[in-house]
Amino acid sequence: MTFAARPLRLSTADAGFDAALAQRLHWSAEVNAQVEDTVTTVLAEVQRRGDAAVLEFTARWDHLEATSVAGLELTQAELKAAFDGLPAAQRAALEAAAARVRTYHEAQKKASGESWSYRDDDGTLLGQKVTPLDRVGIYVPGGKAAYPSSVLMNALPAHVAGVGEIIMVVPTPRGEKNALVLAAAHLAGVTRAFTVGGAQAVAALAYGTQTIPAVDKITGPGRDYVAAAKRRVFGLVGIDMIAGPSEILVLADGSTPPDWVAMDLFSQAEHDELAQSILLCPDAGYIAQVQAAIDRLLPEMPRAEIIAASLNGRGALIQTRSMEEACEISNRIAPEHLEVASADPHRWEPLLKHAGAIFLGAFTSESLGDYCAGPNHVLPTSTTARFSSPLGVYDFQKRSSIIEVSEAGADKLGRIAFELACGEGLQAHARAAEMRLKR
Amino acid sequence: MTFAARPLRLSTADAGFDAALAQRLHWSAEVNAQVEDTVTTVLAEVQRRGDAAVLEFTARWDHLEATSVAGLELTQAELKAAFDGLPAAQRAALEAAAARVRTYHEAQKKASGESWSYRDDDGTLLGQKVTPLDRVGIYVPGGKAAYPSSVLMNALPAHVAGVGEIIMVVPTPRGEKNALVLAAAHLAGVTRAFTVGGAQAVAALAYGTQTIPAVDKITGPGRDYVAAAKRRVFGLVGIDMIAGPSEILVLADGSTPPDWVAMDLFSQAEHDELAQSILLCPDAGYIAQVQAAIDRLLPEMPRAEIIAASLNGRGALIQTRSMEEACEISNRIAPEHLEVASADPHRWEPLLKHAGAIFLGAFTSESLGDYCAGPNHVLPTSTTARFSSPLGVYDFQKRSSIIEVSEAGADKLGRIAFELACGEGLQAHARAAEMRLKR
Repeated sequence: MTFAARPLRLSTADAGFDAALAQRLHWSAEVNAQVEDTVTTVLAEVQRRGDAAVLEFTARWDHLEATSVAGLELTQAELKAAFDGLPAAQRAALEAAAARVRTYHEAQKKASGESWSYRDDDGTLLGQKVTPLDRVGIYVPGGKAAYPSSVLMNALPAHVAGVGEIIMVVPTPRGEKNALVLAAAHLAGVTRAFTVGGAQAVAALAYGTQTIPAVDKITGPGRDYVAAAKRRVFGLVGIDMIAGPSEILVLADGSTPPDWVAMDLFSQAEHDELAQSILLCPDAGYIAQVQAAIDRLLPEMPRAEIIAASLNGRGALIQTRSMEEACEISNRIAPEHLEVASADPHRWEPLLKHAGAIFLGAFTSESLGDYCAGPNHVLPTSTTARFSSPLGVYDFQKRSSIIEVSEAGADKLGRIAFELACGEGLQAHARAAEMRLKR
Repeated sequence: MTFAARPLRLSTADAGFDAALAQRLHWSAEVNAQVEDTVTTVLAEVQRRGDAAVLEFTARWDHLEATSVAGLELTQAELKAAFDGLPAAQRAALEAAAARVRTYHEAQKKASGESWSYRDDDGTLLGQKVTPLDRVGIYVPGGKAAYPSSVLMNALPAHVAGVGEIIMVVPTPRGEKNALVLAAAHLAGVTRAFTVGGAQAVAALAYGTQTIPAVDKITGPGRDYVAAAKRRVFGLVGIDMIAGPSEILVLADGSTPPDWVAMDLFSQAEHDELAQSILLCPDAGYIAQVQAAIDRLLPEMPRAEIIAASLNGRGALIQTRSMEEACEISNRIAPEHLEVASADPHRWEPLLKHAGAIFLGAFTSESLGDYCAGPNHVLPTSTTARFSSPLGVYDFQKRSSIIEVSEAGADKLGRIAFELACGEGLQAHARAAEMRLKR
């Protein structure tokens, strides 16, 4: 069986370019009524019946029978055994990746996650106290897309933030456990782990059951049922984001070997048929070379069928008038992953406003970032990079404003507050300020 | 008409204390089916018909007729005229408050909202670029609770973040405009303002209409319809939080004048009947003094009826065994506003983990923080301070990871990524890394 991958060819000089691009980018996050109904039932049942409901749904959808939720818990000994049992090369790679991810997130915490304060001339203290969350839940996909790297990317920032307890849930359909996932949980310091997935896992983490503790926030990828459940429990607990299909956009000036770019497009496409890979380049000859590399390399790929489906259905090779125009279009797309395959990436980086992660230069393949460069691989998808950020230490911290008004400050601020409170018709506010004025 | 306010008296030494406290704290954020149905319709109609739907809903619910949405836009001249027309004392107070809020948020941006990066020994660059959102919408409540301070608290952090366009929506039922709200919009640098409210305003900002531009994020308080609409459009745009009723918790060691504490409890209670005011104190005699102050001061308050309803329905005066225990209970409640009415507030502050804002010492009334101390008054409610933060500059920024792997780095990282990608069965990821290894 051979497959051909022909991403849509577009040029910004075409008359219908804007519409064609919009159509190619379109991905509907529309609510699916059947999914919503099921999630409503699951949330209500888990809230009402706790463990019993979790067991029923796990048996029904994951074909995993257990007599108690305790029987679905992975012990620390089991996690450690998985780690110890890994081939040495795999264990070393996992440790190296974890060390780099930890270092990066420690730098992140230092740069943007520490408490701060200042004093006014009158002695009034103002600032913010930054504290970790008490307990978080991390959702790790299982089954056909079991990613140990996702365990590291969710648990390590929580750990660096200082979260007290990290509860992991991961579905194990028919009881099939992924040794690398368990090993990563051991390495990343997961506090407790349960082989539960789907909306029932989100519900258990949000409401708590007899066995699974309620958490303050739930992070981690998941689509359909998991995403719908996360959206519904948002407010009772925090959530990170609602993930859509993964995307890569490559901005190329023609200086990177075409094979490398083709393989980077494949890296995204191999995730699933809905993943999106786009190339923006002002050089038609280079685009043709990338297409030739796609044709040459695709047959070698074990996941050629998925790659072909993704590139044919959602991929695009777009010729632009210039690199500047390519940057402008990239901002419109606000991609999850943005590779600047240029000999002069720092020339273009300042023009790039919206992206989850920006990979600069030919050597920076997305795959290095996915696993071990250090930055988080949980990134905003589906244009949400316009307003949201990579998962980070800040997702596992929260801030409290700190205000200590001095006696002199109360006299000064009290007069302002009194005036404004009267203007808003809130007399108790006004009086509370007035009482603290100097006599 | 006279009113009596008798907040529930509890003691942590009581047998049923935990249950009684839980019952008092209970506030259901449950989804209301009628609200949801209406919001579903409003969202669909505004998405489909744009301006026409906005006009219809505004006429129906705000009793405000207009022939075009352009007719609902407040011009910059109108905002400036409102500012120029304020009484001098009010204008000066508004300016002083705005200056302080701006200064605080500039410090916040400097402390936690700047780009950062570092280089590995092998030259690999890692960091995060922090950039402002392009366009945001701020929802300002109107009608009976029109708060100009909310305009400052939403618009100024956006302005400090560097947001390109700030679109304000504020309902003006029957066309009644609040001069202070318009003046605050002028002062805070709002780009465009529309007299539209409710779910239709949220829909217009999320989808865009012929006249109202689509934004990247919507912030600002609002309950019922507005909150339900924000929850529904989350993902298409960013939102700040889902607000519940406002709360204050006062931790008192008995050193603050009881009148001051009583008035601070009133400040919260006067917002609405669902607002919650709680006092925690180890000294029964002091609690009695606060109750006596409540009895004495209540008749003087213009909003006595609302204050009495709030304190009787949701208020509590709780005797604790110690200040340490009071801090522990405060963490359980995770209040929006937390006053530490103590002669030694810095002794207790380190014990306080969860709160939107912490007001230290007798002179720091919540009302000073509400208007002009500098920190934001948009704070997490209903125990969400466990996982969320005050509105801040960070709500109007997003982050992009920056990765530039050197040639030497690609060789080192490529080997790790290759190993892990093989372990996850993602061969294109593995090949992309392998291609960049040194020959």
